[in-house]
Amino acid sequence: MKLTKSLLVGAGLAALPTFAMAQDATPTFDEIGPYIMTTLLFLVGGFLVFWMAAGFAMLEAGLVRSKNVTTQLTKNMALFSIAAIMYWLVGFNLMYPAEWMVEGWLGPFFSITSLEPVGLDAADASLDYASVASDFFFQLMFCATTASIVSGTLAERIKLWPFLIFVVVLTGFIYPIEASWQWGGGFLSEMGFSDFAGSTLVHAAGGFAALAGAFVLGPRIGKYKDGKTIPMPGSNLTLATLGTFILWLGWFGFNGGSQLAAGTVGDITDVGRIFANTNMAAAAGAVAALILTQLMYKKVDLTMVLNGALAGLVSITAGPLDPSLFGALWIGAIGGVIVVFTVPLLDKLKIDDVVGAIPVHLIAGFWGTMVVPVYTDGTSFVTQFIGFAAIGIFVFVVSLIVWIILKATTGIRVSEEAEINGLDVSELGMEAYPEFSKG
Amino acid sequence: MKLTKSLLVGAGLAALPTFAMAQDATPTFDEIGPYIMTTLLFLVGGFLVFWMAAGFAMLEAGLVRSKNVTTQLTKNMALFSIAAIMYWLVGFNLMYPAEWMVEGWLGPFFSITSLEPVGLDAADASLDYASVASDFFFQLMFCATTASIVSGTLAERIKLWPFLIFVVVLTGFIYPIEASWQWGGGFLSEMGFSDFAGSTLVHAAGGFAALAGAFVLGPRIGKYKDGKTIPMPGSNLTLATLGTFILWLGWFGFNGGSQLAAGTVGDITDVGRIFANTNMAAAAGAVAALILTQLMYKKVDLTMVLNGALAGLVSITAGPLDPSLFGALWIGAIGGVIVVFTVPLLDKLKIDDVVGAIPVHLIAGFWGTMVVPVYTDGTSFVTQFIGFAAIGIFVFVVSLIVWIILKATTGIRVSEEAEINGLDVSELGMEAYPEFSKG
Amino acid sequence: MKLTKSLLVGAGLAALPTFAMAQDATPTFDEIGPYIMTTLLFLVGGFLVFWMAAGFAMLEAGLVRSKNVTTQLTKNMALFSIAAIMYWLVGFNLMYPAEWMVEGWLGPFFSITSLEPVGLDAADASLDYASVASDFFFQLMFCATTASIVSGTLAERIKLWPFLIFVVVLTGFIYPIEASWQWGGGFLSEMGFSDFAGSTLVHAAGGFAALAGAFVLGPRIGKYKDGKTIPMPGSNLTLATLGTFILWLGWFGFNGGSQLAAGTVGDITDVGRIFANTNMAAAAGAVAALILTQLMYKKVDLTMVLNGALAGLVSITAGPLDPSLFGALWIGAIGGVIVVFTVPLLDKLKIDDVVGAIPVHLIAGFWGTMVVPVYTDGTSFVTQFIGFAAIGIFVFVVSLIVWIILKATTGIRVSEEAEINGLDVSELGMEAYPEFSKG
Repeated sequence: MKLTKSLLVGAGLAALPTFAMAQDATPTFDEIGPYIMTTLLFLVGGFLVFWMAAGFAMLEAGLVRSKNVTTQLTKNMALFSIAAIMYWLVGFNLMYPAEWMVEGWLGPFFSITSLEPVGLDAADASLDYASVASDFFFQLMFCATTASIVSGTLAERIKLWPFLIFVVVLTGFIYPIEASWQWGGGFLSEMGFSDFAGSTLVHAAGGFAALAGAFVLGPRIGKYKDGKTIPMPGSNLTLATLGTFILWLGWFGFNGGSQLAAGTVGDITDVGRIFANTNMAAAAGAVAALILTQLMYKKVDLTMVLNGALAGLVSITAGPLDPSLFGALWIGAIGGVIVVFTVPLLDKLKIDDVVGAIPVHLIAGFWGTMVVPVYTDGTSFVTQFIGFAAIGIFVFVVSLIVWIILKATTGIRVSEEAEINGLDVSELGMEAYPEFSKG
Repeated sequence: MKLTKSLLVGAGLAALPTFAMAQDATPTFDEIGPYIMTTLLFLVGGFLVFWMAAGFAMLEAGLVRSKNVTTQLTKNMALFSIAAIMYWLVGFNLMYPAEWMVEGWLGPFFSITSLEPVGLDAADASLDYASVASDFFFQLMFCATTASIVSGTLAERIKLWPFLIFVVVLTGFIYPIEASWQWGGGFLSEMGFSDFAGSTLVHAAGGFAALAGAFVLGPRIGKYKDGKTIPMPGSNLTLATLGTFILWLGWFGFNGGSQLAAGTVGDITDVGRIFANTNMAAAAGAVAALILTQLMYKKVDLTMVLNGALAGLVSITAGPLDPSLFGALWIGAIGGVIVVFTVPLLDKLKIDDVVGAIPVHLIAGFWGTMVVPVYTDGTSFVTQFIGFAAIGIFVFVVSLIVWIILKATTGIRVSEEAEINGLDVSELGMEAYPEFSKG
Repeated sequence: MKLTKSLLVGAGLAALPTFAMAQDATPTFDEIGPYIMTTLLFLVGGFLVFWMAAGFAMLEAGLVRSKNVTTQLTKNMALFSIAAIMYWLVGFNLMYPAEWMVEGWLGPFFSITSLEPVGLDAADASLDYASVASDFFFQLMFCATTASIVSGTLAERIKLWPFLIFVVVLTGFIYPIEASWQWGGGFLSEMGFSDFAGSTLVHAAGGFAALAGAFVLGPRIGKYKDGKTIPMPGSNLTLATLGTFILWLGWFGFNGGSQLAAGTVGDITDVGRIFANTNMAAAAGAVAALILTQLMYKKVDLTMVLNGALAGLVSITAGPLDPSLFGALWIGAIGGVIVVFTVPLLDKLKIDDVVGAIPVHLIAGFWGTMVVPVYTDGTSFVTQFIGFAAIGIFVFVVSLIVWIILKATTGIRVSEEAEINGLDVSELGMEAYPEFSKG
């Protein structure tokens, strides 16, 4: 157990019997304040990141065609729930191995998460950090986010259950293993790799898993015809916009909570910096896409503006603390530019990414990771590249293997007829908007 | 007035004139920290539970047919507003009688809520608890939730104003009276009944009020025909999913805030436990319904998955603190199973519950209440059953009387023609989606 | 630099070498607690007010016709992003001139916002206030809200880019200048004008900018015909309701955060009062509109109930702290009444306000500002009127000039054909609901 500040200060107090606070033997707020504030940061940050699950669900429901909406909603609700269970069962202790090597009861490879006892005594708490439960709650949301990214890319053609089996593997094993390399104190963190809130660990990782799936799954029927890309517009842009606003809101918790401390002047001030920078990067990504689509296409493209905001957010996620507001602006703006150029590029490569998750999460995630050294001392472009490549290759290759196995066994793609009629009727027998005429 | 920690510690300080903090006569953060943190818990918890009102509105708007959406939205907006006024006018002080017996100015039965003065001095505050205003704000949201539960069951056939009159009685009297039996220090709390955040007091109570209404109101025209149940699918499953995500988010405040304290290591750590358990129970309820509907019907049923998550949440609400994460998992999962089996059961009994509120809130609420003794020391199945039965009988009988009186006076059901044409056109003259063709 | 409490207390500690906390030379939680709590208030309040941007987007998307939804969404996403950039580039330091007169590097008129350094030392922090970044983050959201108000009024006929140019001027200059008169320590604050969270500074200001735009832009084609007002119902009342719930939720941050302090018993208790009063005013506004539309039109009008809640919120915003809950009730209720009477009045004057933003924000904002002296000592009706008039005239005249210049140069109105076909197809080439039949 760590020698906590509580114990040290407690010793100091013992030597001062006339000190008022010591009379009732309870720790002073001075000793427990930081623990309480950081725990609170994880709880508030955690519920904000939870909310991102709803954001992905709305974004994706808005960007698929109405015949596939129920399926997309089901996948989002299910993937979050599966992530919550797998991260408890395997992921959390696999990701933070220092802990399970001590506490694990099934050997060094597997240990279920257990929380501290009810009514924890201050003497037993890690007063220089936060409660285990709040930490678990917060970290779990990042694991679930990784899975959310995958579901958008593969929409409108993937079978429900094979997708969910992939989520089991991703949230229980793939994400926790690669995330442990950095956040679990693994080799990337020892090399000096820097990824504050997960441009690579969460967003690019989700993007790589999606990319592998897109390769194995292939594009939607009719998407690429005679060398042309056929537009398949989303059914409900209001929902897509709502989803983007939800994600933007949740991102304050995503980046701000990743400060992992809120009980000192320096820490809470840093959380404030992160909030301001995160907001600026999103705004800049949106404005960049707004202006660029106007210049390039003579018309603003709302879906690009939405993805521009999201790309701005992903871009700042690897280093939301150190840049100035101007830094956040140009980093986010380039994120927005990336989306405008790479969405059509992916179509040229016939990689069918229904919601644009690969440009937003993988490519802007790469950008965000590589730009860290500009503002953060002690980081290097080489190390950043190595970290990105290591995680990218690992996630891509393992995901590819899982997708190929799934394809060979359960199959991963619905029948042609089911795809044309829509997955909602064929797979679930339940339409999202049964009363509204389409045509 | 309670002898507060502030007074005690203040006395200690007075004897130590050299103590630095005493020089400016303001209380130390040590003395006021817990008060500030618990007040903050109520404010954050309160706005999260407020958000559940939007969740119910979206869930219900998504699960009714489009011809009744405007009415359902109006009911949800109105019922929350009425609850806010009635709980201030009567409910809060009726629920916590220890307070109004002292402060009441209209005798022991009626006392309007009044807040502490602006700029409250620390010496006048209940430093071992929280501000009255924050407590009122938080508790009011629970009262409103109870009413939200009722509106879903009775949708698509009830008249607007009689429903709202029922809400006046429910939020001003029925809920505060039964809740006072436990949370107001009444006979159930003295018996040892345990209901941490309200599986019985809020959810089952709302469910019993709804059940009484469903009996008096009868099923929708054409719902049960020749011994068969005719499906009447909801008009917008995206909204239903959004509503579920909102409720799930709000539930962190619902259960977490019910710790009623956040200013010690033990308390904030417990809030963290509650967040983690609440999330786990919801996830497990969703996964249970996902798997079960696949097994039973060969197709996943999204509405069951949504209600499964909600039933998981209701199930853990009576005791979200004491179970381990594994406990939360199986408690929530059984909640999900309950929904899958009891939704069709209700239809067999010809109780027409449009959104499945009775299975989710009443039956899973019963389950959640009864399972408390498995993890919580000092509770017994017998006492849990007595508490559930006492509240159930009281709410059901009083609600039944109110519904019957309303039926006999104002009438509670719209005309057959109005029901077939939809309540939006006939009752409000305003369609929710006027431009979209239906068919 | 201000002489902070930290320095004072530090001096006290230096004279007490035996005081335990002083041994490790770090500030005690006693010294930094208020700073941390107020910073936290700004961050939580700020993300709640951010969420209001989504609320306006949903409200407006629901109240315009489906052919103009994509445009409305684009405007809302863009205006927030532009506000975020302009407030950083110009607004924040223009609004708080005491700061930029010292720190400005382009003379007294222009200074970009810069944040405190990473890992701020407690000795360098304004321990009696909050972090600059959190303050900037919070204040920026108010600036963006002002712009959100304008977009609703001018919907369905304004060109995208001229509107966004207006937003640049409004958020970079008009709002910061008028807000500095009060919140930046300007002449209105010296006169004793009182506007706690911005009934005038934010809401009426937005309303005046919208009113000026409505004059220059003119009503939609076919809105006023032969002396009659032709109803043009919104396309999606569920979204409008969702938007209202979002705004209601965000308003807790809007008003509560405006306490600008949370680290003492008095301050956090006041924040609780503000939450309770804000909620009560919204509820009362909704109930007033509910009852009044039933009495006047024999049918409840949901859009009036929604706007009634919003008007209740605007009404309490100038003084959410001092009134009792009963005060909040009647102030909010009159706000609801105002909406019911002034929406048709505006139509009589042929001012075409698509979502009712002028009644809700300008007229209820006037009401809220004028009623402050009833509960707040040291304020007078005359001063309140002068403050409202000064800001109203300034914003209206400057906005009028900007709108006229825009009309004369870029033009501000789409072609007649484009308006009839809908802005989504003609301006953006992208429908919000491409698959759903209309008719």
